[in-house]
Amino acid sequence: MIARAMAAESRENSPSGSPGPLRKHPIKSIIEKTNNFRRTRSLNAPSPIQQFGPCGRIMKNSAMVMQIQDPASQRLTWYKPPLSVLVIKKLHDSSVLVPFVQLVHWLVHEKSMVVFVESAVLEDTLLKEYGDFTSVRDRLMTFRAGTDDLTDKIDFIICLGGDGTLLHASSLFQQSVPPVMAFHLGSLGFLTPFEFNNFQEQVENVLEGHAALTLRSRLQCVVLRKIPEDGKEKKKPTTILVLNEVVVDRGPSPYLSNIDLFLDGKHITSVQGDGLIVSTPTGSTAYAVAAGASMIHPSVPAIMVTPICPHSLSFRPIVVPAGVELKIALSPDARNAMWVSFDGRNRQELRHGDSMYVTTSVYPVPSICAQDQISDWFDSLAECLHWNVRKKQKQIDELSDLTHYSNETLEEIDNHDERPADT
Amino acid sequence: MIARAMAAESRENSPSGSPGPLRKHPIKSIIEKTNNFRRTRSLNAPSPIQQFGPCGRIMKNSAMVMQIQDPASQRLTWYKPPLSVLVIKKLHDSSVLVPFVQLVHWLVHEKSMVVFVESAVLEDTLLKEYGDFTSVRDRLMTFRAGTDDLTDKIDFIICLGGDGTLLHASSLFQQSVPPVMAFHLGSLGFLTPFEFNNFQEQVENVLEGHAALTLRSRLQCVVLRKIPEDGKEKKKPTTILVLNEVVVDRGPSPYLSNIDLFLDGKHITSVQGDGLIVSTPTGSTAYAVAAGASMIHPSVPAIMVTPICPHSLSFRPIVVPAGVELKIALSPDARNAMWVSFDGRNRQELRHGDSMYVTTSVYPVPSICAQDQISDWFDSLAECLHWNVRKKQKQIDELSDLTHYSNETLEEIDNHDERPADT
Amino acid sequence: MIARAMAAESRENSPSGSPGPLRKHPIKSIIEKTNNFRRTRSLNAPSPIQQFGPCGRIMKNSAMVMQIQDPASQRLTWYKPPLSVLVIKKLHDSSVLVPFVQLVHWLVHEKSMVVFVESAVLEDTLLKEYGDFTSVRDRLMTFRAGTDDLTDKIDFIICLGGDGTLLHASSLFQQSVPPVMAFHLGSLGFLTPFEFNNFQEQVENVLEGHAALTLRSRLQCVVLRKIPEDGKEKKKPTTILVLNEVVVDRGPSPYLSNIDLFLDGKHITSVQGDGLIVSTPTGSTAYAVAAGASMIHPSVPAIMVTPICPHSLSFRPIVVPAGVELKIALSPDARNAMWVSFDGRNRQELRHGDSMYVTTSVYPVPSICAQDQISDWFDSLAECLHWNVRKKQKQIDELSDLTHYSNETLEEIDNHDERPADT
Amino acid sequence: MIARAMAAESRENSPSGSPGPLRKHPIKSIIEKTNNFRRTRSLNAPSPIQQFGPCGRIMKNSAMVMQIQDPASQRLTWYKPPLSVLVIKKLHDSSVLVPFVQLVHWLVHEKSMVVFVESAVLEDTLLKEYGDFTSVRDRLMTFRAGTDDLTDKIDFIICLGGDGTLLHASSLFQQSVPPVMAFHLGSLGFLTPFEFNNFQEQVENVLEGHAALTLRSRLQCVVLRKIPEDGKEKKKPTTILVLNEVVVDRGPSPYLSNIDLFLDGKHITSVQGDGLIVSTPTGSTAYAVAAGASMIHPSVPAIMVTPICPHSLSFRPIVVPAGVELKIALSPDARNAMWVSFDGRNRQELRHGDSMYVTTSVYPVPSICAQDQISDWFDSLAECLHWNVRKKQKQIDELSDLTHYSNETLEEIDNHDERPADT
Repeated sequence: MIARAMAAESRENSPSGSPGPLRKHPIKSIIEKTNNFRRTRSLNAPSPIQQFGPCGRIMKNSAMVMQIQDPASQRLTWYKPPLSVLVIKKLHDSSVLVPFVQLVHWLVHEKSMVVFVESAVLEDTLLKEYGDFTSVRDRLMTFRAGTDDLTDKIDFIICLGGDGTLLHASSLFQQSVPPVMAFHLGSLGFLTPFEFNNFQEQVENVLEGHAALTLRSRLQCVVLRKIPEDGKEKKKPTTILVLNEVVVDRGPSPYLSNIDLFLDGKHITSVQGDGLIVSTPTGSTAYAVAAGASMIHPSVPAIMVTPICPHSLSFRPIVVPAGVELKIALSPDARNAMWVSFDGRNRQELRHGDSMYVTTSVYPVPSICAQDQISDWFDSLAECLHWNVRKKQKQIDELSDLTHYSNETLEEIDNHDERPADT
Repeated sequence: MIARAMAAESRENSPSGSPGPLRKHPIKSIIEKTNNFRRTRSLNAPSPIQQFGPCGRIMKNSAMVMQIQDPASQRLTWYKPPLSVLVIKKLHDSSVLVPFVQLVHWLVHEKSMVVFVESAVLEDTLLKEYGDFTSVRDRLMTFRAGTDDLTDKIDFIICLGGDGTLLHASSLFQQSVPPVMAFHLGSLGFLTPFEFNNFQEQVENVLEGHAALTLRSRLQCVVLRKIPEDGKEKKKPTTILVLNEVVVDRGPSPYLSNIDLFLDGKHITSVQGDGLIVSTPTGSTAYAVAAGASMIHPSVPAIMVTPICPHSLSFRPIVVPAGVELKIALSPDARNAMWVSFDGRNRQELRHGDSMYVTTSVYPVPSICAQDQISDWFDSLAECLHWNVRKKQKQIDELSDLTHYSNETLEEIDNHDERPADT
Repeated sequence: MIARAMAAESRENSPSGSPGPLRKHPIKSIIEKTNNFRRTRSLNAPSPIQQFGPCGRIMKNSAMVMQIQDPASQRLTWYKPPLSVLVIKKLHDSSVLVPFVQLVHWLVHEKSMVVFVESAVLEDTLLKEYGDFTSVRDRLMTFRAGTDDLTDKIDFIICLGGDGTLLHASSLFQQSVPPVMAFHLGSLGFLTPFEFNNFQEQVENVLEGHAALTLRSRLQCVVLRKIPEDGKEKKKPTTILVLNEVVVDRGPSPYLSNIDLFLDGKHITSVQGDGLIVSTPTGSTAYAVAAGASMIHPSVPAIMVTPICPHSLSFRPIVVPAGVELKIALSPDARNAMWVSFDGRNRQELRHGDSMYVTTSVYPVPSICAQDQISDWFDSLAECLHWNVRKKQKQIDELSDLTHYSNETLEEIDNHDERPADT
Repeated sequence: MIARAMAAESRENSPSGSPGPLRKHPIKSIIEKTNNFRRTRSLNAPSPIQQFGPCGRIMKNSAMVMQIQDPASQRLTWYKPPLSVLVIKKLHDSSVLVPFVQLVHWLVHEKSMVVFVESAVLEDTLLKEYGDFTSVRDRLMTFRAGTDDLTDKIDFIICLGGDGTLLHASSLFQQSVPPVMAFHLGSLGFLTPFEFNNFQEQVENVLEGHAALTLRSRLQCVVLRKIPEDGKEKKKPTTILVLNEVVVDRGPSPYLSNIDLFLDGKHITSVQGDGLIVSTPTGSTAYAVAAGASMIHPSVPAIMVTPICPHSLSFRPIVVPAGVELKIALSPDARNAMWVSFDGRNRQELRHGDSMYVTTSVYPVPSICAQDQISDWFDSLAECLHWNVRKKQKQIDELSDLTHYSNETLEEIDNHDERPADT
């Protein structure tokens, strides 16, 4: 990326203003360009050339520059070896029981880690009747969600069971979240890429620091309550981070909700309908997609706003930059209150004068990839939303020898062209 | 943003690991936080805190770090005063005639600029019969699109007429594009935010360097033709930059097209349907939205992939990071060729063995804002897609005194709270 | 239609089996055919020819034959002159006040009709303060919805204000509904086609029996409660007729609902999502269209089933024949109850073991057309859903002289062709 | 249905005007009603009660009454035993070869039927090399599509292979179509409900006249060409019947098409977009569903109009009564011609002054059901569009003993209630 930026710089400074090499020697120039830029499959767009014709430039504003690392290069590293691990298990699901006991045994006896589990997990009657578990039970650390503070106590999280376990992990850590490794049992989930069968090998691998990370952005939602008439005591604002979405809807009211939406302080629209979903890219494949949204890869820095059954047929979902601040409030002429829920929880009423502010949080969920950001996402689309045509893919593999270069990138092709003609 | 990043750093290094100030003094902490972070309405998401629990970190990889300036802060500046201006005018539209003559007169006589127009414009019979134009006609520079090279000759572009004029400007500059100021005549377009009536004042303003810029990303499309059987002479690849979208469809064939889509070399899906649209955020509100896509703000670094009438009902549009490289090719079992077009032009056939590579170009179109990136976009949604509820907005303005803080951001509210109690 | 059926019969019995006249003399044969069939713009499809090749026939089953009159020919007639009229007025809307008083005055003093109004209307404080109303107040008949029985008391209904008034009229008459004439005040509604300004003339016209009718089908919904464990006393089933739709949703629960749908006793699908809408064609342009349904003309005999934000992306709305019986029940594995509401009212919970049966009622709402069934419907689509392109239409009218036959039907064209050549 | 109508009549004539029996004895009255009406699972809606309050009636218009038989009761009968059978086979598909030879052998040798096949089928090289076929080859009757007239020669049609074979059968019979029995090989199609494995038994069954029929309506499309300037010789109109849909699109032009749509002579909208689909209910699950339409059961008498990628986001598909006549023509201001195709064939250009008329034909395709109209349709939705949730259904069957009456209709339940209390 640096290389790419430098190449761009040098071109900017060239006296001739880069007279379009493509026009002159098309094949050669593509090769050169590719070599100079050394494409490394960054997920970030290349830095745009900031010279526009002979005179136009972007005004430099160093205060507004930030450094970002390419998401595709994000890998987990351990500052010091992780000792404590939180295991999150789906409740009341008998199929998770055996894997859970296997995993905990292994973590405690083989890896000598300090294992945390939620008290509610140990109180599960299914587990109580499970003989083999007694030996390890007393060595577990327990806590109660909402009561005990986990800050700085957990080095690593393992989820067992379904996307809900990752949402729960997110809710437990309202600031920095330890790295999360999520196993599905049964079918692949959006947030649970790992298969359980050879879990030992896979966990070892992660503990040794070999893992790609998806930083799943979260939304910071701040609910401000109306200042009471007497003006004396204002309710404290509530802040909740969500991984999927915050939803505002009409609740039990049969009437359409009337919701005002502001973006960076500007009123942008009023929503008449069943409600409004503000979601992260991660959440775009959850409730939002059912309400008609397009599906956004988790590494796109964006916020998605999706109306639920809007009265206006032209009210399509919109995707806005991740840095904006949205404000949601009841329209002044709304007859009914609205209800807000955060990742499907903490449902509460918003009345006239209340408002909610939503923006991207600085605390993402570092979700460990089974393969990489791209493969994991498309595999989950195929599995969870039947997005891909499996049968065709097989057919293509069989037939791929019929076509040239079918799995290569432009860069790899250019490298072919560079090979000396006599090889 | 620097300030924000620094604040984050200092928190990272705190020995206690920031034990959640919100929990202790909610109101106070929001104020503090806001002050530290000094929110400047960046469109970029804040840099995520890169410490995940006590041990987890992101592995530093300086080669993969890039610097990006906040899109919201992008403003035009002139390295030296612009002297030459290209005026692009919609052809065969009599309503553009008077504004065109007015504008050219003013640029030549008042501003003493060198004005370029396309030869075809001067050949328009409507213009030929226009008496007042003779005096200025001989002072214009002309060129023919596709023949004459404009590189380094144009400092500034003014478009008159409709979104098509901006697409035309984009096609004329396949590398660096001079800043573009686009006027609509009649109703607001997506790409033409300026009203013409006081054009002098507005152009002066831009020439003085007072203008927000939207860098509209373009897609670089490279068409590679099949290597001929004899292996001797390969057709040269064609490269075209598009501002809206590249479309692959079944052309005149009545059969569904069978298209393979690859992302960074990985086969991600096969499309059976009328075709496929790969669009920029700018293009998301053009053909893609008609095919069911969500609408993406131009400052979101992304590429949108939208199927056209797909056979599979679960094939929703997807939004992927701007840095990926897509490859499109005919499926090996496809019965028909497919047709590709670039911003609705240059229609050509792709056959078995041909392929097309698409990725974000380093050459965006620097489009000058009438207001700012956010306001311009929502205004165009409302006007072009009837997205907003105008009537309601008026009503809200009248009633806004009934509610508190209706147009403020969280930061501004926090500033209220900071005011000394006795004022 | 009889003529058409007869022509078909005679063809069926022809020895040669109708050797395709179109093949021999195309123009002539179309004319002949059209003359024989004498197209009268029926909305019903023509009776299909029931001979399939030389041997195939439909088995006659006289018990299953019904006579239907072409909807396009449905006109109102009065068995005896209407004397009593129910005026339904939107509550708490000051803009309806003056029209309401005008209308009631005219009906009482000019037309000497017995006017019924709901007690709640007279209790409206806005009306109480309205001086001019006193003289007529004492001559009105009042009743309370839900308490007083209106059966056989009302000859004619006039609605003032919005689609809600017609839904209210429907709810008041759970069996036969008197003819309804509905005025909009402000913008055209789906169910309120009449403009108020010359109401006297229009009401006179209807009272004289000159009016096209749309028979808007209603759905009969029967709620059966679970038989209590003790088996003794079963709750009585509740029957409600709806004009728009019956909705089943997850109510205040944050979890997806799990709903089983049966059609004529057969389980056809299970819905996971926010809920399910079963609507009449009239209701297809209400809630259903917001949830993604296509829009069905009120004269199509059908029931529409639309999922609300379904988990499965391929779960599209379906349109089934009007005669089927649907059953809706909670899936056995559903965690939550579901909530049902009828035209947005009478919201109630359905639990495990409860079920609801829905089918087309024999009691439609006879809604008086302002123009005719087709024009009224497309005008309301244009007005309420911005469906039509007004500007273009005007343009077309201006330009229509450029094209031939632009507003004619095939029949009219054939009549041209029949004109003797020498005229 | 007669019974139902009579019950309604008697109620109409009751002196009291039917004072709402449901109100007084809810359970009893539902039973009575059900008994009187004797629900027979008609797909037609019940005849509406045509008395609206004490005075309102529908004006009788005997000329506009038609008799329709309930679609659910449609069964095939043979006027005389079928002797000749047309076998339609998918071309160039080796998997159809063995079934085809088996079927033809059986029809010729076991059933002594005269078997017709298309010449092209016998010319298929795959078949020529198939040894076992020689013995039967010479006993087949052959014909060429488009050249030889099949009228009155075919008693029965068997299709082998896919939905395309039924579309082909439809195209061969532009008037009366012999009964069609369609086998799928591989996965179930929308139009091919029969499994091949025990074909003998199934064909026997149909030849004996035991079969439910779906009369699939077709659209009659008449293309009228512009009258030439000299006014002398007008091109003959072309008439084509389609089973799925007629499509008008922009063809190879990159510009949006501008299409005017008229209904019974009235201009109802102008379409700007990729095109327009006019489909039968059968066709609603073909191209139309890919363009966003709802899915219509084949027994609903309707025509569906679906825009393809319309410029206006509020342009939803509409469903209109089967009897209307649509006219499609190029808008006067359209820049480009449009292209029309009929069930994906016969693609041709329509220019300014040309027009096309579309209405429901009197010649449906009598398609033999494997089970019945309802089951066949929902099974094909599940199979072809992944509409149903298979896994859930199984689960429900296992659990159905937990709930009461889960597969009963309202009528059956009422019969329970009638049982004497002492049984």
